[in-house]
Amino acid sequence: MKLRCTICGREYDRPVQRCECGEPVEFELFHGKPYIGKTVWERFYDFWPVEPDPELSLGEGDTPLIRSKLGNELGIKLYLKNETVNPTWSFKDRGTFLAISHAVKEGYKAVGTVSTGNMAASVAAYAAKAGLKAKILVSEEASKEKLKAVSVYGADVIRVKGDYGRLYFKSLKLGERLGVYFMNSDNPLRVEGYKGISFEIAEEITPDYVLIPTSSGGLFRGVAKGFIELFVSGLIDRIPTLVAVQAEGCSPICRAFKEGKERIERFESPKTIAHAIENPYPPSGNAVLKLFREMGGLCVTVSDEEIIKAQAELAREGLFVQPSSATGIAALKKLNLPEGVNVVSILTGSGLKALSTAPLGKVRECSIEKLRECIENNS
Amino acid sequence: MKLRCTICGREYDRPVQRCECGEPVEFELFHGKPYIGKTVWERFYDFWPVEPDPELSLGEGDTPLIRSKLGNELGIKLYLKNETVNPTWSFKDRGTFLAISHAVKEGYKAVGTVSTGNMAASVAAYAAKAGLKAKILVSEEASKEKLKAVSVYGADVIRVKGDYGRLYFKSLKLGERLGVYFMNSDNPLRVEGYKGISFEIAEEITPDYVLIPTSSGGLFRGVAKGFIELFVSGLIDRIPTLVAVQAEGCSPICRAFKEGKERIERFESPKTIAHAIENPYPPSGNAVLKLFREMGGLCVTVSDEEIIKAQAELAREGLFVQPSSATGIAALKKLNLPEGVNVVSILTGSGLKALSTAPLGKVRECSIEKLRECIENNS
Repeated sequence: MKLRCTICGREYDRPVQRCECGEPVEFELFHGKPYIGKTVWERFYDFWPVEPDPELSLGEGDTPLIRSKLGNELGIKLYLKNETVNPTWSFKDRGTFLAISHAVKEGYKAVGTVSTGNMAASVAAYAAKAGLKAKILVSEEASKEKLKAVSVYGADVIRVKGDYGRLYFKSLKLGERLGVYFMNSDNPLRVEGYKGISFEIAEEITPDYVLIPTSSGGLFRGVAKGFIELFVSGLIDRIPTLVAVQAEGCSPICRAFKEGKERIERFESPKTIAHAIENPYPPSGNAVLKLFREMGGLCVTVSDEEIIKAQAELAREGLFVQPSSATGIAALKKLNLPEGVNVVSILTGSGLKALSTAPLGKVRECSIEKLRECIENNS
Repeated sequence: MKLRCTICGREYDRPVQRCECGEPVEFELFHGKPYIGKTVWERFYDFWPVEPDPELSLGEGDTPLIRSKLGNELGIKLYLKNETVNPTWSFKDRGTFLAISHAVKEGYKAVGTVSTGNMAASVAAYAAKAGLKAKILVSEEASKEKLKAVSVYGADVIRVKGDYGRLYFKSLKLGERLGVYFMNSDNPLRVEGYKGISFEIAEEITPDYVLIPTSSGGLFRGVAKGFIELFVSGLIDRIPTLVAVQAEGCSPICRAFKEGKERIERFESPKTIAHAIENPYPPSGNAVLKLFREMGGLCVTVSDEEIIKAQAELAREGLFVQPSSATGIAALKKLNLPEGVNVVSILTGSGLKALSTAPLGKVRECSIEKLRECIENNS
C-alpha cells in the first residue's frame, strides 16, 4: 500500500489520511483488467486498495446510466448517472463502503465523519451494518429532517458548535488518538470508491465530457483517477474532459481556476440552495486545481435560479434529485459543447433528502361526483 | 395476448383491466429460458407481456439481495431484497415501467393512478419520462410531504373528496372513456412487472420462504406468478412458501384467511402506522386468498409496535425503510420457522418517504473545544 501527497509528492507506506504538508494523499495508480462479475467491486477487482468485503456491503454501486432528452436541443448526447439509487440514496455509499472495509481490516471499533447530509447518513448506515460505533459530527445548522435521517441508524450524533472547517482537521487528529477512523469528505479510500462511477460509465459509453458537482473535491478526484487508471491500463482510448460544477454562492475552486491560481482561498459568506456542495474551504481544492493543470478540464459556476430550473427539468424526466445534483444540468447550457459529443452528468443524491425545502406543486381539489370534469379539465 | 380472470376464469383476448365479474384478470403463464443481459428485462425477456422499452426505463429493478444478521437468533438464513433503491425508491417502479410501456404502445397520451404514496410518485415519474400526461388521484388525507414528492414530476395532482375504494373502480371506468390509462395497484401489467423480484431472488438463492408486505395484493400476486413461471419453465425445483404480511390495524386478507373464507370483507376503521399497506378493501384480496388455497402460504399480522421495532432493527443494519416495509421482519418472530431455511423479506420502500413521521434520535451538543471529551464519552 503506497500513498503519495497530491501536492508535494511525499510518499507514505501506511494509510495516512493527509500529508504532513496538510494536503490530501492518494493511492498510487492501479493497473488491471476487468473480470466477469455482478458488482463493480468484482468486475474491477484489480483497482481497489482494499479487499471489498461483501459482508459489509449494502449493495452500493452499479447504478443506471440513463439517456436524457435534455441534451437534444443542444445537439449533444446526454446521459445521467443516477447515484440517487444507492443504499442511502447518494454516491457517498461507494466511498463509505471501501473506507469501512479498510477500518474493519485495521481493527477499528469506531468510525466517524464530519457532515450534515449525505455523508453523515452513509457513514451511520455502513457503521451499523459493520457493527461499529459511529461518531457523526454535525454542524449547528443541521435541520431536524437531516438529523432524523442520520440518527435512525443508531449513530452517536454530536452537534458541534464552532468552525466547521476546523472540525475537519481536528476530527482527524482526535480520531487518530482515540482510535476512531474518521472518513471525511476526501478520505483516500473514499476517493478510491468513487472510481467505480467512471468504470461503470466506461462499460456503457465513451464519454467526451463528465459533469461533476464539486464540493470538497473528493468526488472529482475519484472520477478523474478512475478514468486515468482505465487509460493507463489500456481499457479506454481517451480520458474525457472533466467539468467541476460549483454553486455561484460558494465556488472557491472555480474562482481560483479562473484566476489561474494554484491555491484556493476561503470563500467568505457562502450562500446557496445547494447545501450538499456548500464547502467554503474544500480540503481537496488544491488537488483539484492541480488535476486541472495536468489533464485539462473546466470549472463552471451556476446560480441558485439555474439550479432550481435544472432540478425541475430533471424531475420532468422522472428523476428527482437534490439541488446540488442538478448543478451539472444547470452548467450544460453555459458550456457551448460541440455537437454530437457524449456528455455524462452525475446525479449525486436523492431529492427526498431535501424534501422540506422543495416547493409544493399545484394540487387541485375535486369531489368524486365531479371526477370526470376534473380529469378532462386540464388544470 | 391472453388474460384470464383470477376468480371466475373467464378469458379475454384484449388487455382489459378487470373481469366483468369485478375481479382482477391476469396474463396467462409465461414459459421461457434466461438470457445473458445487464437488466432483468433482458435476462427474462421471455416472461413479459409487453416489450420493455428501454427509452421509457429509469433503471428500475436489479436491486440488491443483502444477507442480514437478524435471522441469526432464529437460526435461519435471512436475506433482504432492497427495493428502496429503485428510481422513485419503491418496488412500484417495476410495475409502472411495464404498464407505461403498454400504454405508450397502445397510443395513450395520458396515464393515471389512484394512490397517495409510492405508486403516485412512481406513475408521475414514468409519465414524465415518457412524455405522457399524468392524472394522479390522491385522498383528502394526503400529507404535504407526500404531495411534494408527487407534484415535483409535473403531474396533474387531484385531491378527491369521497370514498377512496370507490375511486379505484370509478377511475378505471372514467379512464376507459376519456383515454386515460389508469394503472392502479393491481393492474395486470403492473403485477407482471413485480415478477422480476422473484426472478432476481432465484438468480442468487433458493428461498424457502418469502415475506411480502401486502396491501392491494398486487405485489403478492406478482411475486407468486414469478416463482410459478420459473417452476413451470423448469428453472427452479420448488416454489417457496409465500407469506403475506399485513398490519393488525388493517388486515382484511389475513382475517379472511384465518376464518377460512374465500372472500375478503371490508376492514372497518383501519388504523396503522404502515400507511402504504393500509387498504381496507384490497382489490386483489380474493385473488390472493385463491392463491393460498392453490399453493399454500401464510398470512401474518403485526402490530404497529412490532413494526416500529422492526424498522429500528433494519436501520441498525444500515437499511432505513418506511414502516410498511418493516412488516416482514416484524412477522419473522411469530412464524417459528424451521432452522436453516432461506428466508427473503422484501423491503418495499425508502424510509425517506415518511421522514416527517419518523422519530428524531438522540443528538448531543458539544463545543469544538470539548470535542475530545464528547467523542470519548459514550453518550
